[in-house]
Amino acid sequence: MFHEPHLAPRAVTCQPLTPLSFLARAVDVYAERPAVAWRTDIWTYAEFNDLVARMAHWLRDQGVGPGDVVSVMATNRPELLAAHYAVPALGAVLNTVNTRLDTEEVRYILEHGGSSLLLVDPTVAVDPSGIQIPVHVLCSGADQSDGVNFFSGDAPALDLLAAVHDENQPIALNYTSGTTGRPKGVVYTHRGAQLNATSNLAMMHFTPETRYLWTLPMFHCNGWTHTWALTAAGGLHVCLDKVDPALIVQTIAERAVTHMCCAPVVLYMLLDHMKASALSRVRVGTGGATPTPALLAGLDELGFDLTHLYGLTESYGPATINDPGPHGPPDVAQRARLLARQGRRHCNTGKVAVVGVDGAVVPDDGETVGEIVLRGNTLMAGYYRDPEATEKAFAGGVFHTGDLAVMHPDGQIEIRDRAKDIIISGGENFSSLEVESVLHHHPDILLAAVVAAPHEKWGETGWAFVETRGGKPIDTEALDAFCRARLAGFKRPRRFIVGPLPKTATGKIQKFQLREQAKEMATHEQP
Amino acid sequence: MFHEPHLAPRAVTCQPLTPLSFLARAVDVYAERPAVAWRTDIWTYAEFNDLVARMAHWLRDQGVGPGDVVSVMATNRPELLAAHYAVPALGAVLNTVNTRLDTEEVRYILEHGGSSLLLVDPTVAVDPSGIQIPVHVLCSGADQSDGVNFFSGDAPALDLLAAVHDENQPIALNYTSGTTGRPKGVVYTHRGAQLNATSNLAMMHFTPETRYLWTLPMFHCNGWTHTWALTAAGGLHVCLDKVDPALIVQTIAERAVTHMCCAPVVLYMLLDHMKASALSRVRVGTGGATPTPALLAGLDELGFDLTHLYGLTESYGPATINDPGPHGPPDVAQRARLLARQGRRHCNTGKVAVVGVDGAVVPDDGETVGEIVLRGNTLMAGYYRDPEATEKAFAGGVFHTGDLAVMHPDGQIEIRDRAKDIIISGGENFSSLEVESVLHHHPDILLAAVVAAPHEKWGETGWAFVETRGGKPIDTEALDAFCRARLAGFKRPRRFIVGPLPKTATGKIQKFQLREQAKEMATHEQP
Repeated sequence: MFHEPHLAPRAVTCQPLTPLSFLARAVDVYAERPAVAWRTDIWTYAEFNDLVARMAHWLRDQGVGPGDVVSVMATNRPELLAAHYAVPALGAVLNTVNTRLDTEEVRYILEHGGSSLLLVDPTVAVDPSGIQIPVHVLCSGADQSDGVNFFSGDAPALDLLAAVHDENQPIALNYTSGTTGRPKGVVYTHRGAQLNATSNLAMMHFTPETRYLWTLPMFHCNGWTHTWALTAAGGLHVCLDKVDPALIVQTIAERAVTHMCCAPVVLYMLLDHMKASALSRVRVGTGGATPTPALLAGLDELGFDLTHLYGLTESYGPATINDPGPHGPPDVAQRARLLARQGRRHCNTGKVAVVGVDGAVVPDDGETVGEIVLRGNTLMAGYYRDPEATEKAFAGGVFHTGDLAVMHPDGQIEIRDRAKDIIISGGENFSSLEVESVLHHHPDILLAAVVAAPHEKWGETGWAFVETRGGKPIDTEALDAFCRARLAGFKRPRRFIVGPLPKTATGKIQKFQLREQAKEMATHEQP
Repeated sequence: MFHEPHLAPRAVTCQPLTPLSFLARAVDVYAERPAVAWRTDIWTYAEFNDLVARMAHWLRDQGVGPGDVVSVMATNRPELLAAHYAVPALGAVLNTVNTRLDTEEVRYILEHGGSSLLLVDPTVAVDPSGIQIPVHVLCSGADQSDGVNFFSGDAPALDLLAAVHDENQPIALNYTSGTTGRPKGVVYTHRGAQLNATSNLAMMHFTPETRYLWTLPMFHCNGWTHTWALTAAGGLHVCLDKVDPALIVQTIAERAVTHMCCAPVVLYMLLDHMKASALSRVRVGTGGATPTPALLAGLDELGFDLTHLYGLTESYGPATINDPGPHGPPDVAQRARLLARQGRRHCNTGKVAVVGVDGAVVPDDGETVGEIVLRGNTLMAGYYRDPEATEKAFAGGVFHTGDLAVMHPDGQIEIRDRAKDIIISGGENFSSLEVESVLHHHPDILLAAVVAAPHEKWGETGWAFVETRGGKPIDTEALDAFCRARLAGFKRPRRFIVGPLPKTATGKIQKFQLREQAKEMATHEQP
């Protein structure tokens, strides 16, 4: 009875959802409020919009138009943030590239993505001779280099929304880290980005008073879409040239930072470096590893409140959130145990389930391991130029994360291990996370990673790579005794390798590399 | 280049936007947290979901299905909140009815809307003999009446999302107050409701710690969509049987209320009633009249922080917001002057402009008066069974509010007057708001409303209806002198009528009625 033609969607009542609307609105609402801080400078939202306009017009002058891909390989400086608006404002697609990739990996991404041009910052070491498209170096007044400077000059008017005709059109192309096989190009849409940014805005409690420190690389899921979410709130983006503990601590104090996101490895670094507490409480979103009681207690004392998130590039970053709020248990070990869980579904995540191989949900007993699957408006459109991988990922009408977890009775998921991180020793399966968790309780260990090494008799055994606090030496025999006292025999590491751990640009430990190293060492040693 | 078939929207990545998803998620995420408080009881989100499920199944048993209209006429009790989920979960359309309407008005709405059945609470006085559809009385254990009780019994499983096939399908049918002509049926969609609820969640800063007092009637734009927004946040809905100052003050203290929304008239009542400050700061969203310096100073002292919003039924409630934040000027008069502005566009409002009769935007000089027009995803689909009024409202691709305002240089709109509230005396136009603002500065006046009365010589003159604090007598000659000292001669009220002012159910002064009264008195008095 309600199907009257005059009630159908029309242009005035149905506009494409896009996170570009957040900047358009910020210019209306927060024009004179601080938008971006970098080094010693601050730009208001009106000024940041000028930066965006200059970049967009320059890109248009380079021939960039609707459907083109623009690649940017930069640290968290204002131009990278601006590219999140300037590129899609042309109807083009933003491809942010991890700054730590080597030229060969970059070349593959640019070719696969069909990129039109590459913007790099002066610190990025890419051999331009290997790149077939124009490469331009970003340049601020302070940079000791020539290049294209978007910080000054005329700012012609720019209609941020003019090129957004369909909320399902692509806004970004983000390549996975590709630990197995070639990286895959994850396609984000305007609609998905708007909705995940809105989820973050609501669940991280961003407001105009938020001062957000950019410890999380913007090239990582577009900074979990905070690149857009914070603008929606009218908060301050505090840029950061590098993830350096001293610089972070200094910036937190100078800018009175209220929020930041980072991998736990950054938090370990901060814990090791900071002596005094932060001036105000800082809300930290973290993910990718389990916060230990020691980390939690230490951070608490320093003034950091942890929120644990879980997601993938394919889910625009966060898909689940564990925000303990002010009502957590007072006991720090108990809080750590609860905070180790990855949480429950995010504001606009349609469904989070843990399923068995038959696709049926596992019991919520905190014990039965299954695969995390997702549904909802904050999932990628698919993998660019890879229909096969796309259909495989969406098989059965859900997105398959490939991550293994249990479901707790309180509806929280807890990752037991990525499938590839399960170690099978003498027919017994165990999780490298469990062993790492034990090692993280050792007072001298800053970071630990346990991987499977091939073994003639047992098939596999676990080897532990450990990084000590301040790099000081550690007695591996005592460490073995420490593990024996806390783990079943087949779970204890058969070998300890001490030294700095290899990390990705986003601070995740590169277990892939450790696995290779262990394999090589084990093969070499065996008769 | 990006148009690959496998990247098109599919069921797993594109689900209809609907605020019902907020309750579905709350059951997953906040199951054991308090959802609804009423009188002495509290229900968790799991329990509230049971209430919703019972109501949905009962409605289905009554024959309600997709596209049907279900009317509810009730105060802010849990069943009215539950109806916001139970009715649309069947694919049906919720029609909330103002509890103060008389039987004839209710009959018109039920017939025009084609309602299937009417639920009323025991306090509602509607003559069932005038109603052609089944009328059922709501009944809790505590109510002294027979009726349908949704608070106990089996709660069969309910898939909240099963009947939402299209995000543009209708979710609610809200009749305008109809001060001129018949009320119009404003149609809300699932998409629009989800997006406006998300705006409110973000901009009112609702969190799981929010305890929201339901002073604003839920039948008013579905409580500005807070019926859904607060559930998205996992906050506590604090129900309220009636807008009584003593009950409000008591409930604020008992439930440690953090947020509420209401018309300024309720705030005047509170200011008059409260002696001590609220225990904690309460964030108050208000709209519909100008907060005076006296009101602002008084509320500030009592612990209330004001946010000024503006909107209409057609915009799902709030379309603009003026949130002064912690950085307002310290001087209370200056703050009041800034807070009197209606604000800038809300989070998901596409456009707010002030235009002249030619449709061109007026200068942002704070002086040139034009009509407020809106665009965006949080506008009604149209008027039910009224294509003509719909096309007129959307003429030229914008929504015409009919409200007159100026645009300030800082991008804030300020309502000068509804067109019908401008008084034209001896060829001079002036705003009744300006005169009311002067009267509100008088220490003995609680409320003032100025309307045009016909005048033989001047065409119109302004008459002032005033309600005094505690109903005490006031010297109208002294009041006249008070106005003469502060207003141009043609603006001063020619007559003062002292007594309680007639108010709508939402607390707005019924100027329409005062205008009628003034007209009748003036006609009667003239020779």
